[in-house]
Amino acid sequence: MILIKGGGGAGLNWEGIARDIAELCRTNRITLVHGASYLRNRIAERLGQEVRTVISPSGFSSVYTDPEAIEVFLMAYAGVANKRIVAILQRQGVNAVGLSGVDGRLWQAKAKRDLLVREAGKTKLVRDNLTGRVEAVNTGLIHLLLDHGYLPVISAPAISHEGDIVNTDNDTATAVMAAGLGARTIVYLFEAPGFLEKAGQEESLVSHIPRHEIESFLPCAQGRMKKKLLGAMQALASGVEQIFFSDGRVEHPVRDALAGRGTIIR
Amino acid sequence: MILIKGGGGAGLNWEGIARDIAELCRTNRITLVHGASYLRNRIAERLGQEVRTVISPSGFSSVYTDPEAIEVFLMAYAGVANKRIVAILQRQGVNAVGLSGVDGRLWQAKAKRDLLVREAGKTKLVRDNLTGRVEAVNTGLIHLLLDHGYLPVISAPAISHEGDIVNTDNDTATAVMAAGLGARTIVYLFEAPGFLEKAGQEESLVSHIPRHEIESFLPCAQGRMKKKLLGAMQALASGVEQIFFSDGRVEHPVRDALAGRGTIIR
Repeated sequence: MILIKGGGGAGLNWEGIARDIAELCRTNRITLVHGASYLRNRIAERLGQEVRTVISPSGFSSVYTDPEAIEVFLMAYAGVANKRIVAILQRQGVNAVGLSGVDGRLWQAKAKRDLLVREAGKTKLVRDNLTGRVEAVNTGLIHLLLDHGYLPVISAPAISHEGDIVNTDNDTATAVMAAGLGARTIVYLFEAPGFLEKAGQEESLVSHIPRHEIESFLPCAQGRMKKKLLGAMQALASGVEQIFFSDGRVEHPVRDALAGRGTIIR
Repeated sequence: MILIKGGGGAGLNWEGIARDIAELCRTNRITLVHGASYLRNRIAERLGQEVRTVISPSGFSSVYTDPEAIEVFLMAYAGVANKRIVAILQRQGVNAVGLSGVDGRLWQAKAKRDLLVREAGKTKLVRDNLTGRVEAVNTGLIHLLLDHGYLPVISAPAISHEGDIVNTDNDTATAVMAAGLGARTIVYLFEAPGFLEKAGQEESLVSHIPRHEIESFLPCAQGRMKKKLLGAMQALASGVEQIFFSDGRVEHPVRDALAGRGTIIR
């Protein structure tokens, strides 16, 4: 099983990703997860809604999520992005089925309504945040689809144990899912050639990270890359053998990733 | 198999529909289809987009659909409405899985890019309309989910034979689906007590329509009700035994419908 996670940037080449998957899925079980952050921000902007990013005391960024934000989240992730990617795959002959974490309780999350955030140098408590951390995955539903020739295309949001729709971190959910599915390989595609030692400087690409050295790269990881690295550590600890961080903008994003053109962690 | 179609009006009692389904699905195979027209119009308005309704020469209304309109369609139907209904069902203990017609090519439509419309007393041709008529249904995917304890929650859009996302009429699609699934019963829920002989006048409720008399009710059917009646004729012709038109706003919408409180067609 190969788990592919396509980022939510505007620059990802989804046609190329779909072509690579069409070839790869003849001989491999594949599950695709995708983001939609660019689209979410664009829709929020058009609706005049502010996307409020908060930083935890330990330095992780996330989006503060009220019911209005959940609505935009559903529009972008489960609505526009998910169905467009499914249609692109269908045009390549891949029988894709799009699901959110809510469907069939695919991604079950522990709700985390109260959140400690750092703002203007102070730590404060933010309440009624509709986010959660994925704790369990309905792997049965994924295997059911794969066994019958369908390719699952999955995105946030998740569902809390109480049945509320909650925002969740896609990268962390991907790592939890990989463990549950017994995936051996995860491919993360985004708008950079791989893991960069110096953010924004493509020539600082790190081509290999031995699994036991991930922690030493955490200090130079910025923003969402920090979550990806932590997700990678978690995934490797639970049985995943290799993780690729690679460029989603090129002609053959998945093929190049697996050929080691980006960063390999193992 | 009972096919339930919940309309897209703001007044539908989805909590009540979900409670009824939770009870009913213990002894029946159920598939749910839903609309989201109210939500679609609201989002379009917030985005400053005009919803352009066109009337065919034979008097049927539909929404002219360009790529911008498809985006709003995906936001409302496949995004917000679909996942909210799935979450409501999940809270009632029903293991719902939301799908659009695009997923697994569930609703395959014949695209109809050129459209004849009546405008200001004249017939004219409208091009590049992203709509289609559902011709085939992937019943295998629906049965697969039902056989494994999942309840499919389905909405437009559909996918054209060329793989484009196209707007489609939910009521017609429901009728085609009923035939494919061999459903014996269809329940249409909306914001009226049933089929009204005089539009808007609730006391003109028709409680029984013998199947061979449907056609005589077409002249007094307005707007979308015309499509529902035609859908009903089509469904009965292909083996459906009984169709209920009933109030989706009451405490027990499905239970009341099946008890004959609205209109029964058989």
